[in-house]
Amino acid sequence: MTFFAQLEARSREVDSLVCVGLDPDYKKTPVDRVVALNKAVIAATAPYAACFKPNIAFYEQHGIAGLKALEETLAAIPAGIPVIGDVKRGDMGNTAEAYARAMFEQWKFGAVTVNGYQGYDAVAPFLAYPENAIYVLCRTSNPGSREFQEQRLENGRMLYQHVAVTATAWAPNVGLVVGATAPAELRDVRTLVPDAPLLVPGVGTQGGLPDDVVKSAGYQHGKMVVNASRSIMYASEGPDFAEAAGRAARELRDELRAAAALPA
Amino acid sequence: MTFFAQLEARSREVDSLVCVGLDPDYKKTPVDRVVALNKAVIAATAPYAACFKPNIAFYEQHGIAGLKALEETLAAIPAGIPVIGDVKRGDMGNTAEAYARAMFEQWKFGAVTVNGYQGYDAVAPFLAYPENAIYVLCRTSNPGSREFQEQRLENGRMLYQHVAVTATAWAPNVGLVVGATAPAELRDVRTLVPDAPLLVPGVGTQGGLPDDVVKSAGYQHGKMVVNASRSIMYASEGPDFAEAAGRAARELRDELRAAAALPA
Repeated sequence: MTFFAQLEARSREVDSLVCVGLDPDYKKTPVDRVVALNKAVIAATAPYAACFKPNIAFYEQHGIAGLKALEETLAAIPAGIPVIGDVKRGDMGNTAEAYARAMFEQWKFGAVTVNGYQGYDAVAPFLAYPENAIYVLCRTSNPGSREFQEQRLENGRMLYQHVAVTATAWAPNVGLVVGATAPAELRDVRTLVPDAPLLVPGVGTQGGLPDDVVKSAGYQHGKMVVNASRSIMYASEGPDFAEAAGRAARELRDELRAAAALPA
Repeated sequence: MTFFAQLEARSREVDSLVCVGLDPDYKKTPVDRVVALNKAVIAATAPYAACFKPNIAFYEQHGIAGLKALEETLAAIPAGIPVIGDVKRGDMGNTAEAYARAMFEQWKFGAVTVNGYQGYDAVAPFLAYPENAIYVLCRTSNPGSREFQEQRLENGRMLYQHVAVTATAWAPNVGLVVGATAPAELRDVRTLVPDAPLLVPGVGTQGGLPDDVVKSAGYQHGKMVVNASRSIMYASEGPDFAEAAGRAARELRDELRAAAALPA
């Protein structure tokens, strides 16, 4: 079964679009406590999780010890819950092949995020794993994303729109990353590519609103997951952190569901 | 001393623009032989090397064992020879901070390659290390680089030109990656940003010509390094591989020098 089919099945099973980000903050969680934190967060949020998404930067910042913590974290994710590796890799030729091997064969991520700036051949080696999937960076949720992504091209499209249309035509296992902080652009991408699976970061700490996200991009299992990291993992920094994480994940699931029930 | 100052000093000292890529091919070199290969290549090519550049993908493809080999490889590079980590990272906010910490504090690379698609705030955390430097992907050497990088913008510039001008204005410790396989675009970037340090991959196996590179972008210590990986590391696959690597590095140094001596 392909990654996107698995994601759709899981998302429907728990009726949730929530992607739980596993991004341990080095100021709050020393490397020797990362695995314990992640395991508790995974256990508490799993009932509400369509998928999990560790961003590898938060493990790389601790060097090899951090990557060992990632290994143990991945082992703690229950079978049947898809995992997206947020790695934003992108290179060419045999280097891109090496990255694809790293992400799908070593780390065994179901899907990964990819930077498409280098064009089709930078992502083709990832597409050579048809059971896996990639989410190509399209319109990211950061303030500076406009600088290049909203440059208007001669063909009348903005760069992120051109990326949306071009990348999703490469293969069926291509989705897009579009930030929740830009609901108008999210709606725009959804209109341009109605069937593309979207990974939407930026709710919670970054300020994107679940309601806006669903109004902009719909509520369809597998066609969208909405990521929150810090607002779940660090919902409480007291001894009740796991319960608080579970509650935050459930609330996000419920907010997204509720938005789907409202008239658009 | 800043990375670019160190690079200029080293480049002048050996009168070489050669960047030796340390990219072990998994088909040719099993992970347990990577360190021995790299050590021999480093020793043989050091006299001709302005800098070394491991591409981290070739280590990540072996999982944690590969990253341990990278650690040993970095330890084998003589002090005084700058090291560029070819990592093509790019993310935002606290995630970009985590990548910068990984690359400059854990791996201790002097400089790294960065993907600027997410705009200024995606690279700002790297710029917060003023002694280090970044090379932002501008016009890459792969066939598909045109797909997005040569889109013409409303301001009349192509995307790679816009990236060249925008990124080098961010800070003095920003250089650009421009492929040797596109000499016209290389000349164009050199004209747009005459002082920007360039990292030029794509000679050797990829087909870029040292002569074209120097004719397009000049020969100035520290302002350009020209990378070759496979054509040096695997110049011979016999027992003479180290001598062959040294010879290939010396020949590339000499070709670049000779091109500088010719009328433009």
